[in-house]
Amino acid sequence: MKKLVAEFIGTLWLVLGGCGSAVLAAGYPELGIGFVGVAIAFGLTVVTMAYAIGHISGCHLNPAVSIGLWIGGRFDKKELLPYIIAQVLGGIAGAGILYLIATGKEGFSLSGGFAANGYGEHSPDGYGMVAALVTEIVMTFMFLIIILGATHSKAPKGFAGLAIGLGLTLIHLISIPVTNTSVNPARSTSQAIFVGDWATGQLWLFWVAPIIGAILAGLVYKFISPETE
Amino acid sequence: MKKLVAEFIGTLWLVLGGCGSAVLAAGYPELGIGFVGVAIAFGLTVVTMAYAIGHISGCHLNPAVSIGLWIGGRFDKKELLPYIIAQVLGGIAGAGILYLIATGKEGFSLSGGFAANGYGEHSPDGYGMVAALVTEIVMTFMFLIIILGATHSKAPKGFAGLAIGLGLTLIHLISIPVTNTSVNPARSTSQAIFVGDWATGQLWLFWVAPIIGAILAGLVYKFISPETE
Amino acid sequence: MKKLVAEFIGTLWLVLGGCGSAVLAAGYPELGIGFVGVAIAFGLTVVTMAYAIGHISGCHLNPAVSIGLWIGGRFDKKELLPYIIAQVLGGIAGAGILYLIATGKEGFSLSGGFAANGYGEHSPDGYGMVAALVTEIVMTFMFLIIILGATHSKAPKGFAGLAIGLGLTLIHLISIPVTNTSVNPARSTSQAIFVGDWATGQLWLFWVAPIIGAILAGLVYKFISPETE
Amino acid sequence: MKKLVAEFIGTLWLVLGGCGSAVLAAGYPELGIGFVGVAIAFGLTVVTMAYAIGHISGCHLNPAVSIGLWIGGRFDKKELLPYIIAQVLGGIAGAGILYLIATGKEGFSLSGGFAANGYGEHSPDGYGMVAALVTEIVMTFMFLIIILGATHSKAPKGFAGLAIGLGLTLIHLISIPVTNTSVNPARSTSQAIFVGDWATGQLWLFWVAPIIGAILAGLVYKFISPETE
Repeated sequence: MKKLVAEFIGTLWLVLGGCGSAVLAAGYPELGIGFVGVAIAFGLTVVTMAYAIGHISGCHLNPAVSIGLWIGGRFDKKELLPYIIAQVLGGIAGAGILYLIATGKEGFSLSGGFAANGYGEHSPDGYGMVAALVTEIVMTFMFLIIILGATHSKAPKGFAGLAIGLGLTLIHLISIPVTNTSVNPARSTSQAIFVGDWATGQLWLFWVAPIIGAILAGLVYKFISPETE
Repeated sequence: MKKLVAEFIGTLWLVLGGCGSAVLAAGYPELGIGFVGVAIAFGLTVVTMAYAIGHISGCHLNPAVSIGLWIGGRFDKKELLPYIIAQVLGGIAGAGILYLIATGKEGFSLSGGFAANGYGEHSPDGYGMVAALVTEIVMTFMFLIIILGATHSKAPKGFAGLAIGLGLTLIHLISIPVTNTSVNPARSTSQAIFVGDWATGQLWLFWVAPIIGAILAGLVYKFISPETE
Repeated sequence: MKKLVAEFIGTLWLVLGGCGSAVLAAGYPELGIGFVGVAIAFGLTVVTMAYAIGHISGCHLNPAVSIGLWIGGRFDKKELLPYIIAQVLGGIAGAGILYLIATGKEGFSLSGGFAANGYGEHSPDGYGMVAALVTEIVMTFMFLIIILGATHSKAPKGFAGLAIGLGLTLIHLISIPVTNTSVNPARSTSQAIFVGDWATGQLWLFWVAPIIGAILAGLVYKFISPETE
Repeated sequence: MKKLVAEFIGTLWLVLGGCGSAVLAAGYPELGIGFVGVAIAFGLTVVTMAYAIGHISGCHLNPAVSIGLWIGGRFDKKELLPYIIAQVLGGIAGAGILYLIATGKEGFSLSGGFAANGYGEHSPDGYGMVAALVTEIVMTFMFLIIILGATHSKAPKGFAGLAIGLGLTLIHLISIPVTNTSVNPARSTSQAIFVGDWATGQLWLFWVAPIIGAILAGLVYKFISPETE
């Protein structure tokens, strides 16, 4: 139960921090944080939670991560469903708090996108569905390679939280223009629920692609992984 | 006494570095550091002090942090008041040095805000009082979750200073447009004293909200905290 | 074989992440990540891979690095050629994935440069061949000094991945305007293959200069290196 | 002798990397790195050198740092002069390489300032001499507090390089608009030699103020320092 509360709080923070920085601060005139700031924010939600709750729940915050760790032999199958439920609920709670704050400014509208993920005409820079699929599969694949590698028993102790969080920053630096960057079905679901319409219509891709990428990474990492002592 | 001098110097640095970057460098034409730079600066004041004075005073630099640590069972009640006094005095000293530097440029005026915190018409982007309250409560709550978690005996050794400081960067990336970001009554007080007027009138929120958030975090973390050995 | 797969994946990531951030996200209107974002992205490809695969292959991802480590007495000559081949193939694979994504946006054209390296009229800011040679030699020299120093047995344990990756960020912060920054023949080759024409014509410099810099660093570091225990 | 070569190379890198990013990349149209990028670059020169040569020479790279460490009882008086000479020569060598690269672009002129430090009409944002003095004294004071604290035997092992380098980033985020930020007489001297004229005329301040700040920090830190075991 402690683990599930930790996953709930952590995913709440990922959505509130990452999507919050995008909705509240990215486009502020002249002084706004832009995509660089949003990328740093998403990464730091993971860095901060890795050190704060990593010793409680492992700090997955992401159904694709839990699935990839399961395939990679690092996570127990029977914890999978409860973790995913806690993550999705945490994400929705984070989006709810963000909505409460965002509506405190006159003129706010969900039609601005609320940082939901999309492709085609809902891609920030107009990338099509195939590009979105490739991007989300490859980015999640690499995210899981980083996670599986940095938490391996032969990797330097203590640095995994930095490497994984900064990996999420990197992924956003590359791919926000393509899909607004998901690699995380819980994060996509939370925003789609508020935006509805096209966002729920395109949500399937942000479950399917990250999960495919995560499963592939779990299989590949087993092959390149060094023996554990 | 060494502890109080350390807290004084550390909070001086938090205000001079964080608010200083905002006042002196954020809006410089074309090359200015913007909100991203201010967010990084605030976070790095904590990163640098955590490693410089963490082994002296614990590096709180913030009355809400001291209160949250006390509620979480990590800080002795009888040190609480001296710490808070040292933090507020340090903050004011930092604001004083900043004022001395800022007035070295012709045309400087406190009516630019001097990085004071505010809501309603004094919110950078026009957010109302409820949004400000929610933001400051939730952000301070998460700040204390990070602090309590990253300094737990089961968290990786040595990384707490990075996680906590980068957590403050993250909080600023999200919330500067809402309240100019406080989560720290000492920082808010120091700027309000110089600006006076509306800034002192709104100062109550930046004591009440961070303290509520910190107390809640102290209580919640006790529930999810793993047993210590 | 595990080592070579790891170098392949790592160099794929360096090219996809570094060049990908440049091609997809640097020039996005108003919110784009600019050279700062690209510099951070290149560095983080190395930070993430250092912790993910460093314990498998050493995480060179760069023929100049492998050569410099060999000259510095840290890498076995008979692994040199297989490593370089895996790196070049990985880079090309990364460029291929990037091409697949980039063409998912209407109007994409390789004539935008595809983040290839160049000098003279193909230098981003118009720097001549001598400036390009000096820049690539000196930057690779310092990159190898950082690598040889931070992985020395007397350097603090575990931090090498951060120091080396952030070193690559620093190198990009300085030199993108001069050559688009290479210091890595595999990265240069991967983009030149797609762009062809002038990019393959200037590719020689981005093999010769980094290798000269790396060899010099291997020799100099031997001189200043402390005795190992 | 190894130590002096290490200090020479390290200070060369500080000037080439920090001032180089300012001269070559800060003002590039639209994509330029701005003051944020320059601040990160200066800091990363120290982060990278701290891990690369810290175990050789201690990585001072700065006469004020060597003097502050001597006052703080951490550095032997008889090494002081050789270190300062190596630092100044290294800085000049770095400025020379930068000059060689910068003149590889048509239209380059030293009248753009070459990142030299200044006050009054040579302050980037027009700050007067008193503001410049206060800024350089206080910033160097805090820089030495960070250095003395983070390298104390009770501080977490290995993190000092990060804390100190990121401290230099922070100092630049605050004070580039005031003096172009020195806190380092070797860095100021190297650029003034190339610019001559007003830059050599104002150079005194960038020796006097940093040294005053460093001496004060050495004295204050002795007072707040915990007992060593």
